[in-house]
Amino acid sequence: MTMKAARLHAHGADFAEILRIEPLDLPPPGMNEVRIEMLAAPVNPADLNVIAGTYGRLPALPAVIGNEGAGRVIATGAGVTALHPGDLVAPTTGGTWCTQLNAAETDVIPLPAGIDPQQASMIAVNPPTAYAMLHDYAALEPGDWVVQNAANSGVGRCVIQIAKRLRLRTLNVVRRAELVDELLALGADRVVTEEVDLRKEGPSLTDGSRAKLALNGVGGASALNLANALADNAPLVTYGAMGRQPLKIPNGLIIFRGLSFLGFWLRKWLVEKPAVERQRIMALLAEMVRDGSLRVPVHRVFPLSDIHAAFREAQAESRGGKILIDPAA
Amino acid sequence: MTMKAARLHAHGADFAEILRIEPLDLPPPGMNEVRIEMLAAPVNPADLNVIAGTYGRLPALPAVIGNEGAGRVIATGAGVTALHPGDLVAPTTGGTWCTQLNAAETDVIPLPAGIDPQQASMIAVNPPTAYAMLHDYAALEPGDWVVQNAANSGVGRCVIQIAKRLRLRTLNVVRRAELVDELLALGADRVVTEEVDLRKEGPSLTDGSRAKLALNGVGGASALNLANALADNAPLVTYGAMGRQPLKIPNGLIIFRGLSFLGFWLRKWLVEKPAVERQRIMALLAEMVRDGSLRVPVHRVFPLSDIHAAFREAQAESRGGKILIDPAA
Repeated sequence: MTMKAARLHAHGADFAEILRIEPLDLPPPGMNEVRIEMLAAPVNPADLNVIAGTYGRLPALPAVIGNEGAGRVIATGAGVTALHPGDLVAPTTGGTWCTQLNAAETDVIPLPAGIDPQQASMIAVNPPTAYAMLHDYAALEPGDWVVQNAANSGVGRCVIQIAKRLRLRTLNVVRRAELVDELLALGADRVVTEEVDLRKEGPSLTDGSRAKLALNGVGGASALNLANALADNAPLVTYGAMGRQPLKIPNGLIIFRGLSFLGFWLRKWLVEKPAVERQRIMALLAEMVRDGSLRVPVHRVFPLSDIHAAFREAQAESRGGKILIDPAA
Repeated sequence: MTMKAARLHAHGADFAEILRIEPLDLPPPGMNEVRIEMLAAPVNPADLNVIAGTYGRLPALPAVIGNEGAGRVIATGAGVTALHPGDLVAPTTGGTWCTQLNAAETDVIPLPAGIDPQQASMIAVNPPTAYAMLHDYAALEPGDWVVQNAANSGVGRCVIQIAKRLRLRTLNVVRRAELVDELLALGADRVVTEEVDLRKEGPSLTDGSRAKLALNGVGGASALNLANALADNAPLVTYGAMGRQPLKIPNGLIIFRGLSFLGFWLRKWLVEKPAVERQRIMALLAEMVRDGSLRVPVHRVFPLSDIHAAFREAQAESRGGKILIDPAA
């Protein structure tokens, strides 16, 4: 049969030229594979970087891109035992900007019945990124403070919501003051704008204590501001570089204050984390998505045929939420 | 009785004014204390920073400064059991630029008979710094490569010699080409100058492999050059900042290559490392000093009364070795 997909033919800035919706042959699901009808797929910053050619790992071209999504199993190949037609799943192998795809049974995240497919389409990247960063870098106790920038981003919002579930407190830095109330409503404990000097103001914002963990999605001066809010010997974990500025770290923060500067890359986490542990974490996160305690605002949903408009919108500076693609529209 | 000591009265650049040789009363050694006649004490970069007021921890003034040295026990207070008059020791509590001092038995490093007091006077700071950095940050196997800058510094030379004992290989970066042969003779496996781009040349210098650990005493562009020579997921450990430039780290090195940027401060190590483990390490290092496999070239020895001349010499850009003070001269 034939499916439709968004295929990238070259890296660059002129995506109207290099990203095309094309019909592609899809063979029947093979051994241990399921056929998935896609219901929703988000546009992530990583997708923009793949298209620009600046991402850490690039696919061989031409390639169907998109690295997240959710859909419904509509057929199963030989050997498939745990999944059945009608099950909701999130494929994890990429190439999600399409109407249908085949994926190995081991390359999908099973989703609970009743989950919202649009919210579920955003489960594979930001929620485990937020969970892993909150869990793997520091031994945090309930009540401990975590400081982050890009608090309004997809990862930032997941950090706020998952931290709340873990009974951690968050000091959140955003670029625009109009986001403060929205993030407080989401569960943030404190929200400040980038202009606030955390070296001076940090302790008074966090009840006199200092943050035990910093999460950096921006880089440059914003990252240094987070570092200044940290307790001695605490880590600053960098997962993104929206500001496109390198980290610039005064030597005293590293030598005398003992701060450590580490990175998080989901692709590495997926390879290194034992499968059983990953499945346990994803089941916990899927349950949070289902019960509404982990949710991401959706700015606008575009049909697959409007992929270029979706991209222009995703590149805009200020949005009220994620851009999604609905392949079934 | 009266001893003579170099006392600091204020922080600043005019050390002829702020650092004075003065007679001070020394009480008899108290409970569990020994009286030490000092035989040698080095001038370290940390001392220069204490005088300038830029060090991470500063003494209450006026203070006898100097943080290393070696001497001979000449009297023991009540309760002292392990040390006897005539024993060679290295006090670890600071205030070593003097003719005599009292120290708690637990605050001295016992030294083996026959050790050279001048070499032993440099045992408390650089050798454990080098050993700890080679040991605590990465699980290195014999044959693994370590890359470092400031390879001609006191720490750098200890790294070369201790790495050799641990059967590790070293790629060393120096500022001046005339140091190459000297460091090769000391046991360095490769020595290059700062102009060599390790991103391009690193693998060919290290037999096709990449370094598993980087040790940074400079900062700035030199630190980034070391980082580019590292294998994925390896740490860069900063212990000094001779170049007085912050670390500037491209985000890709942290996120995609998984490098970690950590710091080492001996004062923290001394507090956190269990005493038994520290004693084992210091005994190993003292034995290396005694047998000559761990040695630091001495540029010139000054009497205590020439402390200002010693300082001017220590601040000079290029020297052939350490500046020592001989309080007995």
